[in-house]
Amino acid sequence: MNKQLNPSASLADLARKLGACQDCSSLAGEGKGFRLSGRQSIYEVLDTLVAILFPGCHGLNNLPLSQHLEAIESRLQSVAQTLTGQIEQAFRYQCVFDQCKDCADCKGKAAAAVDTLLASLVQVKETLQQDIVAAYEGDPAARSYMEVVMSYPGVQAMIVHRIAHVLYQSQVPLIPRIMAEHAHSQTGIDIHPGATIGPGFFIDHGTGVVIGETTTIGKRVKLYQGVTLGALSFPKDKDGNLIKGIKRHPHVEDDVTIYAGATILGGGTTIGEGSEIGGNVWLTHSVPPHSKVYNQQPKPLITNKHLDPS
Amino acid sequence: MNKQLNPSASLADLARKLGACQDCSSLAGEGKGFRLSGRQSIYEVLDTLVAILFPGCHGLNNLPLSQHLEAIESRLQSVAQTLTGQIEQAFRYQCVFDQCKDCADCKGKAAAAVDTLLASLVQVKETLQQDIVAAYEGDPAARSYMEVVMSYPGVQAMIVHRIAHVLYQSQVPLIPRIMAEHAHSQTGIDIHPGATIGPGFFIDHGTGVVIGETTTIGKRVKLYQGVTLGALSFPKDKDGNLIKGIKRHPHVEDDVTIYAGATILGGGTTIGEGSEIGGNVWLTHSVPPHSKVYNQQPKPLITNKHLDPS
Amino acid sequence: MNKQLNPSASLADLARKLGACQDCSSLAGEGKGFRLSGRQSIYEVLDTLVAILFPGCHGLNNLPLSQHLEAIESRLQSVAQTLTGQIEQAFRYQCVFDQCKDCADCKGKAAAAVDTLLASLVQVKETLQQDIVAAYEGDPAARSYMEVVMSYPGVQAMIVHRIAHVLYQSQVPLIPRIMAEHAHSQTGIDIHPGATIGPGFFIDHGTGVVIGETTTIGKRVKLYQGVTLGALSFPKDKDGNLIKGIKRHPHVEDDVTIYAGATILGGGTTIGEGSEIGGNVWLTHSVPPHSKVYNQQPKPLITNKHLDPS
Repeated sequence: MNKQLNPSASLADLARKLGACQDCSSLAGEGKGFRLSGRQSIYEVLDTLVAILFPGCHGLNNLPLSQHLEAIESRLQSVAQTLTGQIEQAFRYQCVFDQCKDCADCKGKAAAAVDTLLASLVQVKETLQQDIVAAYEGDPAARSYMEVVMSYPGVQAMIVHRIAHVLYQSQVPLIPRIMAEHAHSQTGIDIHPGATIGPGFFIDHGTGVVIGETTTIGKRVKLYQGVTLGALSFPKDKDGNLIKGIKRHPHVEDDVTIYAGATILGGGTTIGEGSEIGGNVWLTHSVPPHSKVYNQQPKPLITNKHLDPS
Repeated sequence: MNKQLNPSASLADLARKLGACQDCSSLAGEGKGFRLSGRQSIYEVLDTLVAILFPGCHGLNNLPLSQHLEAIESRLQSVAQTLTGQIEQAFRYQCVFDQCKDCADCKGKAAAAVDTLLASLVQVKETLQQDIVAAYEGDPAARSYMEVVMSYPGVQAMIVHRIAHVLYQSQVPLIPRIMAEHAHSQTGIDIHPGATIGPGFFIDHGTGVVIGETTTIGKRVKLYQGVTLGALSFPKDKDGNLIKGIKRHPHVEDDVTIYAGATILGGGTTIGEGSEIGGNVWLTHSVPPHSKVYNQQPKPLITNKHLDPS
Repeated sequence: MNKQLNPSASLADLARKLGACQDCSSLAGEGKGFRLSGRQSIYEVLDTLVAILFPGCHGLNNLPLSQHLEAIESRLQSVAQTLTGQIEQAFRYQCVFDQCKDCADCKGKAAAAVDTLLASLVQVKETLQQDIVAAYEGDPAARSYMEVVMSYPGVQAMIVHRIAHVLYQSQVPLIPRIMAEHAHSQTGIDIHPGATIGPGFFIDHGTGVVIGETTTIGKRVKLYQGVTLGALSFPKDKDGNLIKGIKRHPHVEDDVTIYAGATILGGGTTIGEGSEIGGNVWLTHSVPPHSKVYNQQPKPLITNKHLDPS
């Protein structure tokens, strides 16, 4: 059952075999001279960004107010520097992976992406405050805004999404997806950083929600746990490879509510404004504004051997 | 596409804009003189409480038995002190948020809530041991109690819930919900700290389970992944605001089993004792004791182009 | 509402009550002289193993290539030593729990299990590379292999599973399950370490997937979020106890795709090769090769009060 190793002699041999894979394939890239950040260092940048946006809840809570602005500024500086380096490496990796000819601009593209992110932060924060108010007003269990910011998974996922989406718009490889999947890991909510989502968005409970890359969502939309906004099928090119980059996911207009477990699929599917989509509904075509779409629930079979047994 | 920032000059300006939001709204509270703990410090208190309850699995494992009691006592002291301060700040925040007139008692209410929690710990541990036995006996894959305590997400969620629920009963704001959402993040199981749950409770697998604030559950109940015990609708007051604080979630009597993906909704819905609710059942009305409720599963369409191709 | 404690005097008393439970039952085992590792130390071993397998993404990224092999070797040494001790304690705990008569071999069995794991690592890595390629080719949103390795929850769950499964095959108690549940916590994907899964396996999105202990899966199988490969019922012995260790979960042949939310149950259920199982399908019997199994989706009721309101 086990192939015995001689522990002292064979670990070096095993390291050699495992290490050899390292520079043998496009899976690694170590041999090509760039150094990607580990995930942990990207999570740290993300945490710092969240602390910049919500210092009262997520970071600066023991600082006197007088040192507030200094602390935010110093964190901005730290994020700008670290993230620029990380993004440059990500661009360089993607260039090599895509076998593009011109890698000279990776440094400049990284600096521009970070500038764009910083220039967006005030807007990001304002939009998130609309998300927070939507959560507070949409959930009878919510007791305060602070509770919403500090504990609601839907809000946490959106804080990360609104940051990651800005980086995605600057076509930064790797990093926005790593941020999004970190939020997915923490919340059970899987939002691709490519999704475009209007303000006042609220996901309640959230576990199992999937929102695909090319989804577009209007204002004041509310989702419950287990909702999928997904692709219906994946067109292939003449060589049988999946075609990447076309609209594959639905469009949801303003003021729509989608209840738990509903599945809405397809890039041509539009949910008209003000519509309500019921629990577990399966929808692969558009519905006009102000539709109410509900399953006729299967009537469950109830059997009962002993009524009121003692 | 990007609005260029002059990095050196503009970070101070950006910090000022982001910082200004800080004391301008009820989203922050920094300006009002209280300091909420970050989430991390609440997670640390929770981890210490878990280590107190299960030192063999979650904390003291390298101590000689002779130092066992000392270690537990010193952890109790540390929890009591830290948590009292955190709860006081939470009460103070909630008072300001609710614009209540009398904030003088926050310190006293915090001390009383911590005393109540400490006085409940022996009972909490005894109840959890019944949950652990239920998990071991209810899952053919379970090999030992220790495996159940150290790895079962349903048990982990209940350890946190039984602590958070005691704090919720003392009307502690913020902190029980932050604890519950931490467990949700780790397990995919979303139990509002308000839910009242009897001993011998077991959730298998657990991802996607939602148990609402006013749910009440009897003894020896078993749930599978994806079960929702939720609200059917949210009554509004005459101003159109959601009414908070009424019973919105089901009552589940003793010895009920609810299979994966079932959805049971409404504050007037009671599942009678000894009942079995099948997978994916959707139920918005009460069923009497010893009911068996199953969907007639839709007969799937099976097509088959090539039978037994080579 | 609260039973007041005298804080100074009563914490010692409370520690005594809580500590007393410690050596009174089979839940603890502290009194029996072995010391289990906490979960954290098992997660650390797991992280080191992942860093050994994917140093470019998960660990050694700032090392010059010249020190690569040394670093891998030193990590192998550290894992071998720590894990051997952890496994020995796990075997000893299980022996006592099972009241087996012969505990003398725990040390030897631990050394053999670690040797087997180390001897499997090259194969584990090769199989994982097939999983990575399957993910990249199966998802139109994937931009590079590195993105897949660093961010895809399905890949992360499989990295852990392929390690944990080797330990499970050596009948190591506790530790493989703790590893699997750690991955479950991070990804929402619950794969029991006993499941046997062929190469080229891809789980997209993943939240809510459950794969039971005795599941067997062929090559190039693809699952989506919320798929359950579970047990249909749990046979009991004549004393009414669950029978552990029989095949309770399905067999899935090569090249099968199973869409989101499908539930496939039972140890006698085989999904024939090349089949497609549609979203939310509920299946408790076998289907032949190349079947396409789809629900006739319930036609949702669409009502619409105001068409095109202004």
